[in-house]
Amino acid sequence: MVGGGRGAFIGGVHRIAAAIDQQIELVCGAFSSNPEKSRLSGEDFYLPANRVYGSYEEMILEEKKLPLGERMDFVSIVTPNHVHFGPAKLALENGFHVVCDKPVTFNVDEARILVKLVEETGLIFALTHNYTGYPMVKQARVMVANGDIGKVRKVVVEYPQGWLATKKENTDHKQAGWRVDPAKSGMGGAMGDIGTHAENLAEYITGLKITEVCADLTSFVEGRVLDDDANILLRMEGGAKGVLHCSQIAVGEENGLNIRVWGETGGLEWHQQEPNTLIVKQHEGPATHLRTGVGALSDAANAHTRVPAGHPEGYLEGFANIYRNFASCVRARLEGTTPDPLHTDFPTVEDGLRGMIFVEKVVENSKGTEKWTKL
Amino acid sequence: MVGGGRGAFIGGVHRIAAAIDQQIELVCGAFSSNPEKSRLSGEDFYLPANRVYGSYEEMILEEKKLPLGERMDFVSIVTPNHVHFGPAKLALENGFHVVCDKPVTFNVDEARILVKLVEETGLIFALTHNYTGYPMVKQARVMVANGDIGKVRKVVVEYPQGWLATKKENTDHKQAGWRVDPAKSGMGGAMGDIGTHAENLAEYITGLKITEVCADLTSFVEGRVLDDDANILLRMEGGAKGVLHCSQIAVGEENGLNIRVWGETGGLEWHQQEPNTLIVKQHEGPATHLRTGVGALSDAANAHTRVPAGHPEGYLEGFANIYRNFASCVRARLEGTTPDPLHTDFPTVEDGLRGMIFVEKVVENSKGTEKWTKL
Amino acid sequence: MVGGGRGAFIGGVHRIAAAIDQQIELVCGAFSSNPEKSRLSGEDFYLPANRVYGSYEEMILEEKKLPLGERMDFVSIVTPNHVHFGPAKLALENGFHVVCDKPVTFNVDEARILVKLVEETGLIFALTHNYTGYPMVKQARVMVANGDIGKVRKVVVEYPQGWLATKKENTDHKQAGWRVDPAKSGMGGAMGDIGTHAENLAEYITGLKITEVCADLTSFVEGRVLDDDANILLRMEGGAKGVLHCSQIAVGEENGLNIRVWGETGGLEWHQQEPNTLIVKQHEGPATHLRTGVGALSDAANAHTRVPAGHPEGYLEGFANIYRNFASCVRARLEGTTPDPLHTDFPTVEDGLRGMIFVEKVVENSKGTEKWTKL
Amino acid sequence: MVGGGRGAFIGGVHRIAAAIDQQIELVCGAFSSNPEKSRLSGEDFYLPANRVYGSYEEMILEEKKLPLGERMDFVSIVTPNHVHFGPAKLALENGFHVVCDKPVTFNVDEARILVKLVEETGLIFALTHNYTGYPMVKQARVMVANGDIGKVRKVVVEYPQGWLATKKENTDHKQAGWRVDPAKSGMGGAMGDIGTHAENLAEYITGLKITEVCADLTSFVEGRVLDDDANILLRMEGGAKGVLHCSQIAVGEENGLNIRVWGETGGLEWHQQEPNTLIVKQHEGPATHLRTGVGALSDAANAHTRVPAGHPEGYLEGFANIYRNFASCVRARLEGTTPDPLHTDFPTVEDGLRGMIFVEKVVENSKGTEKWTKL
Repeated sequence: MVGGGRGAFIGGVHRIAAAIDQQIELVCGAFSSNPEKSRLSGEDFYLPANRVYGSYEEMILEEKKLPLGERMDFVSIVTPNHVHFGPAKLALENGFHVVCDKPVTFNVDEARILVKLVEETGLIFALTHNYTGYPMVKQARVMVANGDIGKVRKVVVEYPQGWLATKKENTDHKQAGWRVDPAKSGMGGAMGDIGTHAENLAEYITGLKITEVCADLTSFVEGRVLDDDANILLRMEGGAKGVLHCSQIAVGEENGLNIRVWGETGGLEWHQQEPNTLIVKQHEGPATHLRTGVGALSDAANAHTRVPAGHPEGYLEGFANIYRNFASCVRARLEGTTPDPLHTDFPTVEDGLRGMIFVEKVVENSKGTEKWTKL
Repeated sequence: MVGGGRGAFIGGVHRIAAAIDQQIELVCGAFSSNPEKSRLSGEDFYLPANRVYGSYEEMILEEKKLPLGERMDFVSIVTPNHVHFGPAKLALENGFHVVCDKPVTFNVDEARILVKLVEETGLIFALTHNYTGYPMVKQARVMVANGDIGKVRKVVVEYPQGWLATKKENTDHKQAGWRVDPAKSGMGGAMGDIGTHAENLAEYITGLKITEVCADLTSFVEGRVLDDDANILLRMEGGAKGVLHCSQIAVGEENGLNIRVWGETGGLEWHQQEPNTLIVKQHEGPATHLRTGVGALSDAANAHTRVPAGHPEGYLEGFANIYRNFASCVRARLEGTTPDPLHTDFPTVEDGLRGMIFVEKVVENSKGTEKWTKL
Repeated sequence: MVGGGRGAFIGGVHRIAAAIDQQIELVCGAFSSNPEKSRLSGEDFYLPANRVYGSYEEMILEEKKLPLGERMDFVSIVTPNHVHFGPAKLALENGFHVVCDKPVTFNVDEARILVKLVEETGLIFALTHNYTGYPMVKQARVMVANGDIGKVRKVVVEYPQGWLATKKENTDHKQAGWRVDPAKSGMGGAMGDIGTHAENLAEYITGLKITEVCADLTSFVEGRVLDDDANILLRMEGGAKGVLHCSQIAVGEENGLNIRVWGETGGLEWHQQEPNTLIVKQHEGPATHLRTGVGALSDAANAHTRVPAGHPEGYLEGFANIYRNFASCVRARLEGTTPDPLHTDFPTVEDGLRGMIFVEKVVENSKGTEKWTKL
Repeated sequence: MVGGGRGAFIGGVHRIAAAIDQQIELVCGAFSSNPEKSRLSGEDFYLPANRVYGSYEEMILEEKKLPLGERMDFVSIVTPNHVHFGPAKLALENGFHVVCDKPVTFNVDEARILVKLVEETGLIFALTHNYTGYPMVKQARVMVANGDIGKVRKVVVEYPQGWLATKKENTDHKQAGWRVDPAKSGMGGAMGDIGTHAENLAEYITGLKITEVCADLTSFVEGRVLDDDANILLRMEGGAKGVLHCSQIAVGEENGLNIRVWGETGGLEWHQQEPNTLIVKQHEGPATHLRTGVGALSDAANAHTRVPAGHPEGYLEGFANIYRNFASCVRARLEGTTPDPLHTDFPTVEDGLRGMIFVEKVVENSKGTEKWTKL
């Protein structure tokens, strides 16, 4: 693991997500750019001192020297955005599979390099756009693909949060600090942090690419350089239209990712905060509330559910589904077998590149007077 | 009453809304452009034959001949859009107050003429943007005005419906028929029918005018000329940003008008289909669910509530609040008194003009390549 | 109308409910036992002075002297419980149809007399157990009768309110005052006021009679004589079991009547505060959310709905459905025709008697040590 | 681990719950009474063959021979009810701490023996009444204890499920099979399986013991011996009244545990299927929706939350909180330190005994004609 030491948020999430299914064990780490901090974090995780490294370079190069079976099987990168590319590149170059937090890199150019590297090395690369790990998101994707709602006409995807409604970066809030800093976060603020999740979710469920955007980004909190709010019109393949809006200044909102998709004959609605329900709508008929574990769902949904109906699974289980599927593919690679086809689905480096392009084009459009910008 | 004969929808709503509070009595009508149909409708309503007219012109001119106290006190216009202007103009010219369904006219020019006429005559003109009649909408407006959520930053107003997802105008569905016909509906389809409600609601609650729009209108159903779906970015006074989307092809949606407003310190959320609840959000604190009749609400909310908490009031009661307030003003005018200040609030001809301009600019923007169009 | 003068609650509800459909007109009244108050209330309603009476006796006897067509067609009784029997009896004895608020009388003996009188006179008697007037309640009844959920096994009906959680009767709250007074309310407190609604709703929807009760009534507020809370086990015809609990001390609850019914193959759930939704459950499958006006509902539901889907109807419309159906029967009687079979359904004097017996047996059981008391 | 081999449900839950926080490692097991099945399950979990045992007796006695630090630190018992007592007793007698699934034993006598053994040995015993592990349940308990809702008056706790609405025990459904078999399940059917959860939750949140019960148990499915449905009136310490109903034949219900508590000045409402919300009610004021991670919650709630607001935690995380607190106490014992006081809270063997008495008394009351049975 690279990053994720004391005080970090997403590192702990990755560790839990990896542990839940008892398929993955944390064996080493470079948990901080500060070697002493890294060492202390290693102790927290009961790691032997010789597997706790002072830098990711050291970790990757030293681990490589260990015999197969003993050395780490893959690298998890859970650092701020500007420190994704370095360790990812080095890991790939040294033969390690990679799990990387999103957005995949700092900018489009870095992302293109990683795409190429993954292609050349044939290594496995998972990007933790974790929201596609929820069973009901997979159910939605299957239903759209099956034509259950007909040809998609309209998509509304939202991601309101309120935690940056005040100038939290002026406090000692570690998460806020780097997210509003263009040198660490990249060209997008809310866009990079959560807008890419929304974009990824919309494309994942509909199976359609966004082709054009028209955006209005705002930095509401005084002195903030990056956007903390975004309203975007979408045009998608096949003539579908859409709206994507996300915000970090939507006071009182927690982590309100949600999506509605309407096709010619039906509609779907899913809310991340109640992830075990998928509302299915029909023309001139009542809505059905599909629930995880209830009735005849798709194999994809069932394969990503751990407990029976009414026992709610949440964010960590959804996240763990990314890890489980990644692990299933890594294990198959190690064993020379074919992975269970129901457990090969996770976001890839190409999804990462796509997200970077999306952010770039949205930011570009928002600054200009042209109505539409092609992706 | 002009229009609203057998087979009409909104006419019946107007009659109920007028009757609920037992302050208004239907005394005459020209219920159809077909005199025979008008006569039959008059029988349905137990009207004497001599007060049922074959045309609105006849009604207005004949009623004017009756002595005060005996003749109608005002005219309700509940016809399709293209027949709003004629009767409204004639009524005003002949000294009658007017209740008119929205949108106020067929185009901006007609609306301007009515605004001028109302100004000149001093007559009372109510436009049934009925959704502002709900007590919790009034509560929201008061709270924003009081600064309870701080300066408004973001508004998301939605109006999804699904009833026109198929080509219902090819059946004998009377409501669908005229709404998709540019000769009867005007330049906006969904925009005129429901988009103006959304625009009116957003401006009413926030107290802010929309200053610029960027729109993407679509006619999804083949062969349909007018928009049946709209996605619009908004800029509002004071730097607020927003999204307005409405649709008649959002399969499975009923009448899903809803609005969320976020300010610097709080947020508000209201859904028309559960109108007795107003969710109030705060920064880093839990949401409060205000409910009609519960606790210390504003005078404006309480004055528009008829029954105690937990006895749900609905669409007809909200609509009736427009009529009640209009009636309160008409009665005060007749009696030479001052109306109760809590019962003077209803949408006016100016709101109607504003709606027409909004539709015009949205349609114009949607056809062009300029990003923003000023209102 | 008997009762319902200034300061009353349910009288205003009756007047609105009667007015909504423009089929019934208030023509006279004895609005208070105080003639002066009655007179003032009559002015509020724009009634001619000679039709405002000082007592119900005067009203019934004087109206009887007026010619048919001019005199009132029926009497509405909206007084506190102990003043139901007198006017109801006198009205029936003098040939007037009756609408009476619930509970029908002060005790079982009075109720039996009214049942007999209605039988002998053949007059029409409606009891405003208004909650059976909601379209989705009618839908539920039809579905159970159709066998859509199989043989009924379990019923849970609840009616929590919180408005009497403090000693409101010590303030000048008119509604609280008589409800907690055994001399005016009868032997049941919460039981008579809301428990009978719950009992009526459960029997109406399931079509099954309650056969045995086991009850635990409590007066939580110090000094209160009548129950303000009740927990009751039910046994019903056909082996169904159930729970009925109601309360006036459930702090923070508004008017939370709700019911769940489970049969051998399905389940139903309805909440009065969101009355336009009926949740239908199936074994090992997802729930369907039926909504007023959406899709293929029963004729009974549709006949009691006034506006299209998504335009919420509420308490007053449900109440009005009782009046409309009663009026439909009265009109048919006057005209010598057969009423529309979809508009003959309203609670009767027999339902009233049943409610009185239910209260009596529940109170009796609660005081004793026997587990079950037969109805 | 005892039990929990291939095909089991709760064993997998225990393993995940133990793994999430990376504090506990599965080191050995007797996963089935069939040694071959046990061996195969051990392989599934990547255990060395010599730590997979053919019986719990073998496991406990062999592990005891291993040196401290190498042998297991505690035993998890995840077998059907009738095989709780044996391994629990043997583990305690041999010095092992115990985690045991509920109900604690087959009958009251066995439970009393375990209570005595725990007392004598001083060992740590956790019972997985997992629903008390949710942060918002802990929040509710703290609020009641703080007097935030005043003295408790009324409790309604429900646990409807529908999965046994048909005769599933006649299929090869392993879970159904033993649960309806009195030889394996004990004297309670639904009562033992889920009724004890409801009882435990009610007492945990209110801090009040149930003192008397009046019960109506039913076996709805033909041929079933044990109850599959229960309706129970409760009397609790301090004069509180209550209703507990649970069911396995409530068609369409998933795992619908929920509770409402009303005190003199406030109310609380929690639903297991949406566990991150706690609704707080006040007298004559709006409800507040507390949410995990939002605003100023109790230390107890925050200490049992892993991710920020809006990232839903679910059943497995709640379950894991029992394990984490148990592990915190075991670790402190091993290290001779004092555990973090926020992490010492889990259900104990006394809670288990209490549940067994509750089941016994409810079954006894249901068979008799006495109204109330004391616990």
